[in-house]
Amino acid sequence: MRVAIIGLGLIGGSIARALAAREPGRWHVTAWSRGRAPEEALGEGAVQAVAGTPDEAVGAADVELVVLAAAPAANLELLRRLGPLLVSGTATLTDVTSVQRPIAAAADAVPGLRFVGGHPMAGREQRGYAAASPDLFVDRPWLVLPGPGARDEDITRVEALATACGARSRRIDPATHDRMVAAVSHLPLLVSAALAEAVTTSPDWPAAVELAAGGWRDTTRLARGDPVLGAGIASLNRDEILVALDRFEYALAAWRTDLSAGERGGLAEHFERVRSALEEGAP
Amino acid sequence: MRVAIIGLGLIGGSIARALAAREPGRWHVTAWSRGRAPEEALGEGAVQAVAGTPDEAVGAADVELVVLAAAPAANLELLRRLGPLLVSGTATLTDVTSVQRPIAAAADAVPGLRFVGGHPMAGREQRGYAAASPDLFVDRPWLVLPGPGARDEDITRVEALATACGARSRRIDPATHDRMVAAVSHLPLLVSAALAEAVTTSPDWPAAVELAAGGWRDTTRLARGDPVLGAGIASLNRDEILVALDRFEYALAAWRTDLSAGERGGLAEHFERVRSALEEGAP
Repeated sequence: MRVAIIGLGLIGGSIARALAAREPGRWHVTAWSRGRAPEEALGEGAVQAVAGTPDEAVGAADVELVVLAAAPAANLELLRRLGPLLVSGTATLTDVTSVQRPIAAAADAVPGLRFVGGHPMAGREQRGYAAASPDLFVDRPWLVLPGPGARDEDITRVEALATACGARSRRIDPATHDRMVAAVSHLPLLVSAALAEAVTTSPDWPAAVELAAGGWRDTTRLARGDPVLGAGIASLNRDEILVALDRFEYALAAWRTDLSAGERGGLAEHFERVRSALEEGAP
Repeated sequence: MRVAIIGLGLIGGSIARALAAREPGRWHVTAWSRGRAPEEALGEGAVQAVAGTPDEAVGAADVELVVLAAAPAANLELLRRLGPLLVSGTATLTDVTSVQRPIAAAADAVPGLRFVGGHPMAGREQRGYAAASPDLFVDRPWLVLPGPGARDEDITRVEALATACGARSRRIDPATHDRMVAAVSHLPLLVSAALAEAVTTSPDWPAAVELAAGGWRDTTRLARGDPVLGAGIASLNRDEILVALDRFEYALAAWRTDLSAGERGGLAEHFERVRSALEEGAP
């Protein structure tokens, strides 16, 4: 399959490296990105061609699948600009954006666009092509959101991309997607950032940091991620995150009540309820 | 050195396994614990003797160091009961409790007690001897809190235990200790539990759990730990955790404000400030 990848950072780069490593010879990838990542990728055989502009990548001969793999706001803008150019052709357009309602709305606004939203549920705190890994998507869900102009062939192409990367593709609609990722992905990001902020701005921090153990590292890992990506996600999925935040503050208030009471039995039951719920739902 | 370990769970068991693995032949350990852990440890050579009661372990011939390694509330009770028995002897009493002011107060109430509080900053979500690891303390801080009746020899013994386990010993006072661990350890535990509760009680959870990625697993890992240990810590360090919780809620309110505004630039600056603070303090 002939693919154009726009944006060769952590996600776009990991897709390119996954295709080259897992199904060598089956994919022909043309990449465009700012910086030197496309040349690097060409040198190591992760992509087969480099385009000088996004338009050139999309317009390359016989491209069947275009993957928007830039930051969330940039993907939205790319979709608005490149979408109309694709309507006359036979290529499928997909993306890897963490928030899908705005993307879906932009795609719906281009009649006839063969758009299938995509969101691989994988990431890490490092950014850029240097951090890209061919194994990033292995056994992870890859959410697939067909737009109104998508044909079966378009869905098949996006599912083939997900499968080639080692992911498990799964259909979902944009509203459900954004609500669910607000809960399991974007709320944890905000909570992690607020926790990190509360502690690092304390006068004790310079000494306390030396006592920080694995629990601190884990709970604040998301706050170490790309600030621009975090801001793009938070801004685009604001309404759903605010709902999840309400739910979190409600739970936190219950913890404060039990903590203030200081009664060991009640606190143990509270911790046990949470642990059981996590274990029942464990993937 | 002849050591008695009271409680052979994750921490006590890891100490026994570390001493046997890292300095074989240099330590003679008598252990008491509920359940079959002491016999298991004897069978694998992690301890050299098993006592039938805590009193028997403490009273074993020539014991130089007694380690209270039960749960926080149990350690407090053991200290109150066994402390007076130790005053007439030459043994040093230490512990591994996550909250040190109540322990220090109980030790101060026993005149002449050669007590040196101890808190190895390491853990994992599994509990019990089966989860004990000889490497648990390697390169981790082991906080050392000498009581008023401690002599240099007592401090040296506890520091030798920490060093033998591969940890870095570090002196601190109980009030500073409890304030700092409230920030970097106990607040993250409560936040993790509240996050897990908020999301697992949502009607979306059964479907959303399949989308949960590494960020969700990391931010909720602490909530998967031992509920009884969590409740003991939260109850004993309540006042300091409530102060840390105030600080967290203040930070969270600032995030809500920026999120509500939805302005990408402001959110990116906020994320960047937090990331820089974390990186500056990185151990």
